[in-house]
Amino acid sequence: MSRFYSDTVKNISPYVPGEQPKDRRFIKLNTNENPYPASPSVIEAMRSVTGLEARLYPDPEAAALRRTLADHYGLAMNQVFVGNGSDEVLAMAYPAFFNRTDTIAFPDITYSFYPVYAALYEIPSLVIPLAEDFIIDFKEYPENLKGFLLANPNAPTGIAVTAKTVEALLRQRPNTLLIVDEAYIDFGGESVVSLVPRYDNLLVIQTMSKARSLAGLRVGMAFGAPELIRGLESIRDSFNSYTLDVVAQRAAKAAYEDVAYFEKTRQAIMATRERTVAALEALGMHVCPSSANFVFCTLPGVAGVLVQQYLRDNGVLVRRFAMERIKDWLRITVGLDEEMDEVIRLLQLFVQQKG
Amino acid sequence: MSRFYSDTVKNISPYVPGEQPKDRRFIKLNTNENPYPASPSVIEAMRSVTGLEARLYPDPEAAALRRTLADHYGLAMNQVFVGNGSDEVLAMAYPAFFNRTDTIAFPDITYSFYPVYAALYEIPSLVIPLAEDFIIDFKEYPENLKGFLLANPNAPTGIAVTAKTVEALLRQRPNTLLIVDEAYIDFGGESVVSLVPRYDNLLVIQTMSKARSLAGLRVGMAFGAPELIRGLESIRDSFNSYTLDVVAQRAAKAAYEDVAYFEKTRQAIMATRERTVAALEALGMHVCPSSANFVFCTLPGVAGVLVQQYLRDNGVLVRRFAMERIKDWLRITVGLDEEMDEVIRLLQLFVQQKG
Repeated sequence: MSRFYSDTVKNISPYVPGEQPKDRRFIKLNTNENPYPASPSVIEAMRSVTGLEARLYPDPEAAALRRTLADHYGLAMNQVFVGNGSDEVLAMAYPAFFNRTDTIAFPDITYSFYPVYAALYEIPSLVIPLAEDFIIDFKEYPENLKGFLLANPNAPTGIAVTAKTVEALLRQRPNTLLIVDEAYIDFGGESVVSLVPRYDNLLVIQTMSKARSLAGLRVGMAFGAPELIRGLESIRDSFNSYTLDVVAQRAAKAAYEDVAYFEKTRQAIMATRERTVAALEALGMHVCPSSANFVFCTLPGVAGVLVQQYLRDNGVLVRRFAMERIKDWLRITVGLDEEMDEVIRLLQLFVQQKG
Repeated sequence: MSRFYSDTVKNISPYVPGEQPKDRRFIKLNTNENPYPASPSVIEAMRSVTGLEARLYPDPEAAALRRTLADHYGLAMNQVFVGNGSDEVLAMAYPAFFNRTDTIAFPDITYSFYPVYAALYEIPSLVIPLAEDFIIDFKEYPENLKGFLLANPNAPTGIAVTAKTVEALLRQRPNTLLIVDEAYIDFGGESVVSLVPRYDNLLVIQTMSKARSLAGLRVGMAFGAPELIRGLESIRDSFNSYTLDVVAQRAAKAAYEDVAYFEKTRQAIMATRERTVAALEALGMHVCPSSANFVFCTLPGVAGVLVQQYLRDNGVLVRRFAMERIKDWLRITVGLDEEMDEVIRLLQLFVQQKG
């Protein structure tokens, strides 16, 4: 403990990301990465950056990328914000919109970075338990919230709500800023980006790390009313003027332009997921209905830590969260077909040995 | 103004970076970029990133890069932190080490992001005027400071203090965290990185944007006692788990490995600077003694805004700061020899027309 630590450092418990193993080769199904490589046109775009471009600061406005995103979603450029991963975008949204006297809410089981940001910025937060079946009961959320964090689909459950449900929330709570985190939206959920022009209390956050196979490049986006985007820009420009480097800007633009590759890979992942869910259920596992590139599942009567360790011993990394309610559940990323075949084979063996 | 803005957004005045022109071609001497391209081995390293690597999250520890930096400076890996540009590293240092009840100090004329961070995090700051000749008078700084921000060389003056002066400060003020911002250190200053193992109240911040020609890739570093580094990591991991993308990590490592290119280009820049300073002084300009890759100069009796506009009209961008004390001074980045020849030629014409 350094005598120079601030109270913030003394009091926070940082987010713990999934393991990125360096030594042993695992089937890596623990951080919801896309099993397919970035599109060839993305790699080509990355390699087009010259030494003379690398010496210059990148465009702080990321205009070319934001133009592409705006056109893709039918928005204006001033409704689009980009950052160094959706985590950074979220980390800027909290101080942009919430005071230390406000209350924000999110479910007990959701992306575990939400309470970390709240602690970092000292924003009081109301943590509301999901219903028994991991469904969000919106009636449980008070009316007077300043902010509502909604991961859709939710993580780590994979359960989505409809766009109609989100729109009803926006109407019922005009004074609540609804932040819809659509990190996994492209695997079967209904995006509400198209509602951005109609609701000034909506901020939609997305990422290129999942459906665009670009976790390594760190690109996240926010879509919202121009005034909300200006709020994010104001925090960004008080923190780091140039958060997206020249390579990431170019790669991200190319990723959105290669629609065919995006469609092909996301459809493949959804097909693999459906097949995986059926196989896990055939083994007697409970599986949440997933609209994401992962499945959240449990083997009744068996401690999750045992299943996780068994898979790890056999070369497969999956994610488990220490929280009491879900400690026996595993979050398994949807990988390649052959990777999921191996997971299913291992779990079959495990169930047989138990039986 | 959105009804969702936080008090923070309402109260801050973001940093304004130098213009990055998109349309017209300028001789761009306004943001202290390196005139030489990134090293060929850096570009090769960037291009080695594959589509399968881009799909995976980058190493959150940036271990390979930190190993290279540690070896380069004779430090241990746990004395090295990396971030998305030195601006981000600074933006994490404030909340890591300073409370809203602490006092930090910096000069009136220095890197203009320091007061912006202080406003963002609501850290009370003591702004102490430089002496008449833009020298820092350390006796003016109270003893009981929690933090002291020292840009060495200072920006935008380019004036450096010796390592001996810095070490005296560290000894005299063991309870003050001294943050030495060495963004421009490789152009003639004396780095205090070698003091890191001996002083736990020293945090040295550097960047790859200047002497390593990598402004476009956004890589900054901090060097300090392991406990200070852990404080930075704690904030980073509560903000964004993976701030440095896979391409930036690989490029930065290659940049530090190509020592010959670094030496050649920084020597060339220093030689061009000396020649430029002599020519500007021959024109009757006052020029601060620069240990950086820019010169800070003024033409006595002429408004700075006129000279800046004249240069702009003739295709040269330079930086000027609106602050009263230095409003007639220009900060001119040291570019290629032929670029500086053009600046000198234009200023000669300007002086002749005035005379």
